Amino acid sequence: MSVAELVVRLPDWVAGLLHGLPERLPRQEDRLGVALELARQNVCRGSGGPFGAAVFDASGRLVSAGVNLVVRVGSSILHAEMVALALAQRRLGCHDLSAAAGAPYELCSSTEPCAMCLGAVPWSGVARLVCAARDEDSRAVGFDEGAKPSDWVGALADRGIAVVRDLRREEGAAILREYAAAGGPIYNPGARPRR
Amino acid sequence: MSVAELVVRLPDWVAGLLHGLPERLPRQEDRLGVALELARQNVCRGSGGPFGAAVFDASGRLVSAGVNLVVRVGSSILHAEMVALALAQRRLGCHDLSAAAGAPYELCSSTEPCAMCLGAVPWSGVARLVCAARDEDSRAVGFDEGAKPSDWVGALADRGIAVVRDLRREEGAAILREYAAAGGPIYNPGARPRR
Repeated sequence: MSVAELVVRLPDWVAGLLHGLPERLPRQEDRLGVALELARQNVCRGSGGPFGAAVFDASGRLVSAGVNLVVRVGSSILHAEMVALALAQRRLGCHDLSAAAGAPYELCSSTEPCAMCLGAVPWSGVARLVCAARDEDSRAVGFDEGAKPSDWVGALADRGIAVVRDLRREEGAAILREYAAAGGPIYNPGARPRR
Repeated sequence: MSVAELVVRLPDWVAGLLHGLPERLPRQEDRLGVALELARQNVCRGSGGPFGAAVFDASGRLVSAGVNLVVRVGSSILHAEMVALALAQRRLGCHDLSAAAGAPYELCSSTEPCAMCLGAVPWSGVARLVCAARDEDSRAVGFDEGAKPSDWVGALADRGIAVVRDLRREEGAAILREYAAAGGPIYNPGARPRR
């Protein structure tokens, strides 16, 4: 077997978008706005699904950005949140952001996490998750969000992670609807028979 | 912000281990044995946590291998199953293994998946998950497995994914116990206060 490798790298346009940001974003809605703009641009530029995410340190400084790269890279694990978390850890040189200088860290996401990304949140060491669209907004356009524990917000709270929901929800939901209306791929492996 | 990248690559010893395998492994217990040997060697060689995984096509041919690389790479998303799924998709050039030639694909794992890896399974397009140790065996040595839906086997079945549990369970559990007994890092971000 040839031992393959996977390289996770953001589309070139992301650097330009981030370059224009202030050094710090003290307001939570502005930090979430970065995730929303990443989602919006990922659709406009045709680089992936309608999802964006970003990690910020305690001072409101951007540490990493993520966009959905599932179809572009051909990798189902590359949801926006996974990309943002992995790149934040890479930048800080630590698999646990709770132990990195600049903690506590915050993950902002244009849509609530699917089952995989939800599972990834506690392992990442972030202390707060801030979301725009609800997962039902994503399901409404056809994305399968997976089987999440019914009280997933409580399950994160049990691990010391605060969740802020419904901030700029309508903007997040609009990005999802516009993507679906334009015929963007809904890439669930849904072709398998349900049984 | 400098836009970082993440490179996911297996430790060098993996190629040697895989090179010695038959071209096809028709027996499920032998396919799971590859995941177990990956877990065992990952511990012996000090390259990561006590977890291994492998993806096989319908003919029993190995497509990819994965080992836990969390501490080695400094990335909390790099559980063995995630690595194996990502490398299988990379090799086959498709984010959905259910649509790739050689389907249906099987994911073998030395331990039942944590919440993140469980969430990743449906998105990957595999049709079957085969596990050795139970997640309670992993919890017993201190790993947090996350909040999984109580009937996670049923939730996978609802998406057309069969689960085989407890095959060679004791071998998988022994690898976990030996790792913990030798003082291997239990790398949960558990330093945060619970509230």
